[in-house]
Formats: sequence, C-alpha cells, structure tokens
Amino acid sequence: MERKRIRLTVAYDGTNYHGWQLQNNGNTIEAELNRCLTELLNEPIQVVGASRTDSGVHALGNVAVFDTASRMPAGKISYAMNQRLPEDIRIQKSEEVPADWHPRHCESRKIYEYRIYRAEFPMPVKRLYSYFTYHSLDVEKMREAAAYLEGRHDFKSFCQAGSQVQSTVRTIYMLWVEEQGPDIVIRVCGNGFLYNMVRIIAGTLLEVGEGKREPESMQWVLEAGDRAAAGPTAPAHGLTLMKYEFLA
Amino acid sequence: MERKRIRLTVAYDGTNYHGWQLQNNGNTIEAELNRCLTELLNEPIQVVGASRTDSGVHALGNVAVFDTASRMPAGKISYAMNQRLPEDIRIQKSEEVPADWHPRHCESRKIYEYRIYRAEFPMPVKRLYSYFTYHSLDVEKMREAAAYLEGRHDFKSFCQAGSQVQSTVRTIYMLWVEEQGPDIVIRVCGNGFLYNMVRIIAGTLLEVGEGKREPESMQWVLEAGDRAAAGPTAPAHGLTLMKYEFLA
Repeated sequence: MERKRIRLTVAYDGTNYHGWQLQNNGNTIEAELNRCLTELLNEPIQVVGASRTDSGVHALGNVAVFDTASRMPAGKISYAMNQRLPEDIRIQKSEEVPADWHPRHCESRKIYEYRIYRAEFPMPVKRLYSYFTYHSLDVEKMREAAAYLEGRHDFKSFCQAGSQVQSTVRTIYMLWVEEQGPDIVIRVCGNGFLYNMVRIIAGTLLEVGEGKREPESMQWVLEAGDRAAAGPTAPAHGLTLMKYEFLA
Repeated sequence: MERKRIRLTVAYDGTNYHGWQLQNNGNTIEAELNRCLTELLNEPIQVVGASRTDSGVHALGNVAVFDTASRMPAGKISYAMNQRLPEDIRIQKSEEVPADWHPRHCESRKIYEYRIYRAEFPMPVKRLYSYFTYHSLDVEKMREAAAYLEGRHDFKSFCQAGSQVQSTVRTIYMLWVEEQGPDIVIRVCGNGFLYNMVRIIAGTLLEVGEGKREPESMQWVLEAGDRAAAGPTAPAHGLTLMKYEFLA
C-alpha cells in the first residue's frame, strides 16, 4: 500500500499541556495528535515534531509530519482533525510533502515571540500569554543589548546546562524588541535554538531593561560560554512559537 | 466611626465566572470582591458595580464602589486585594471618592470592544477572547452599517426581550469597525447600553459583513423597535468592557 507523508501546521495554547513531547505522566501535544490521527485514519500514527516546545509554551505554527496509507485528501485532514482535537489545539494546515522530507533535517527559520506586559498590576486577560512585570524597562537599552546577539555566535551561555548538543553555535538573523502599547515583544528569528535559549535571552534582556546589567555586557556573556553568565530563564507562558519557514 | 467611599477599577477574565452579579448558583465577580474585601477589612462589605456584565464577558476596567470604616489608605487597597483575589481578577486602581458618588447615578461613557477572529481555522491562543468565524466579512459594509447606529436613537430592537427599562433611548457617541491583522474589532462608546445591546449590535454587524443584510437595513431595524428585526446575540466571550469615563 502506498504511503504518503503529511505535514501539519499546528497551533496550540500550551497552558494545559506538559509540552510537546510524549511523556509517561501528563498530557502532551504530541500525545493528542497521535491519539487523534490514530482514531481518524484507523492506523497507528506517530507524528514527528519540528520543535519540542516546553511545558506552558504556546504555538501559532509548530510543524509535525507523519506517514499514512489513508486515501483521505491531504488538505482535508486538517478539517477532520479539528473536529476531534480539544479546543486548545488546532491544525492550521495539512499538506502532502515528499516522502523524505523531515522537519528537523532541513534548513529552516523559526520565529519566536516573547511577550512582556509591563504595568502596575497584572491584567487578567493577558495573564496566560505574556509575562507580567511591574518593573520599569528601558526598551532602548534592551534593543542595544539585543544587537550584540544578532549573527552567528556560540550561544553556550544561553543554553540550559545539561543539554546535550554537538555544537552550541547558532545564527540569529534578527532580534527585535518592539513596544506594542503596554506590551514589550521580543521577536527572534533564527536557524535553530538551543534548549531554553529564547527564554534565557528574554530573561537576560529583562535584566538589561531593569538596569541590572549594561547592554555592552552581552559581549562577555557570549564569550564566557557559561550559563551562569546570562540572566534567568524567563517563564514559559510568555513564549510563543510563531512560525516556521522551510528553505528547502 | 467615619466611613469613606472607595472606588475600584476592576479587570477580569470572565471565562470562569457566571458574570458580575451575585447568584445563588455559581461564582461571580461580585461575590469574589465581597468575599475578598470582607476578609481584608474585617467588616461585611458589599460592592455596588457599574456594569453587571454577563457570564463570559471580560473587563479591563469595570468599576465598583463600597463604603468602609477601615483606615487602610485608599490607594493601598488595590495591592492588598490583589494578594487575595484569584488570578483572573485584578484591581487596577483603588481611590477615595465623595460619599455620595454612585457609579450608576452619574454621567459616564463606557467603551466596549467586540473582537472577531476571521480565519480558516480557530487559533487556540485567541479562543477565549475573540469570536471565531470562517466567513468572509466585508468590513467596509460593516462600517457603513455601524454609521447608522451612531447618535441618539431608540435601541429597542437591540435590547434583549424581557428586559425591564424605563427608556430604550441611548446615545452611541462612536461605533468603529477596525481591522487589526486577522482580527476585526467593533469598538463602541456610549452613555449606557441596554441588556445585550453590544452583543446584538455585533451579531447584526456580523450579518452585514457576511452579506446576509445590507448596511441600509439598519435604518428600518432601528425603526422597527422589535428585537426580531436585529441579528443574533453574538457570543459573550468576544466582548470586553474596556473603560469607564465618568463625566462628573
């Protein structure tokens, strides 16, 4: 039976999930997708995800693939899945891709946003999707600091200790800090990110904004190659995986 | 003992509440505020709210007042309440007002927003605070229709049947329809609104946007003085009470 490979663009509210990746305890995005597809297509399906986002992180456009012998048209799978998924997960697109296409073995750009809400008091309707702070933030200094991180660098200082990767060199194409009314949005586009890298960048830029460290200090944070040189890991719920762009 | 009157600016995520007003069954915003203040100030407190928002409606700035003999400085009450309230309710401001000031007996303007997310599929992170539709919407026609409703009119057609009010005449100062990326926001500023009025306006403008009725039909909807002439009541979760402005 001929099998075809399907790519899903997956959006979710991470609030009630233990992240993307299958776990023995706790519900995950991957587990929900596998369950839904296995029921829908009546064959055992295991998806392969592009980004294994952490517990509490949101996504507008994460990506997953799976193979199926089903004759359901690729474009209809999104509609059928959305009838069966919980309302905090929605497939945005389903399409056929070449049988050897793999989301982690192809050149890509990802865009993440880290959203900060700065005010005297938290705003309930923002609490699930942004990090609240009552500290004044010097956005201009955050921008200066961000500029040091753009480009190709060894981001070892911005990688959660204990993470096992061959190389900690990554390229950040763009790192903006944007004011949107009372929100400050850190938007980062890169070819790949180390474990907790965006949240550590956000936590470090927050310290710059609060005046706890100077923008110029980013240079030695990078050179130190030591997680302890960077700032804290900002909370997961402020982070959203916005978009993947595949270059091949 | 001298009593003073305190005004609270109250923000909440209405998702998990049965609206503002005290009920025998189900948790309400008013019940949470009364419980919190009674504990905090160690005297029985009952707040009086400006807008008794429906189940599921959100607020950035609803208003309530209460009287207290407490000597806690008015400006500190917000901080103390926010330590005790559930995270989906947050006081944005607490201040002393004249002893005869009443939020429903003074001239005011309120601003509501009704948010619509238009796309092929729902977006999980938007699902709690906007109404999803996959229908194409003609925003220009929605704006034309909105213009008919601005000004002083008898809004009987836009009032939930069974509502008991002396007069159904209200003034809408402004009714905008704004595109914000994939969102369409209906923003309305008025001196007072009838029961479900903003949601019925939103439901009627949605029908105009979908091409089910023409903008010019707003004129006879107003003239009909009949709830059946207007469109459906749009779902509560798309509605947010943004702001009160008191003119006295």
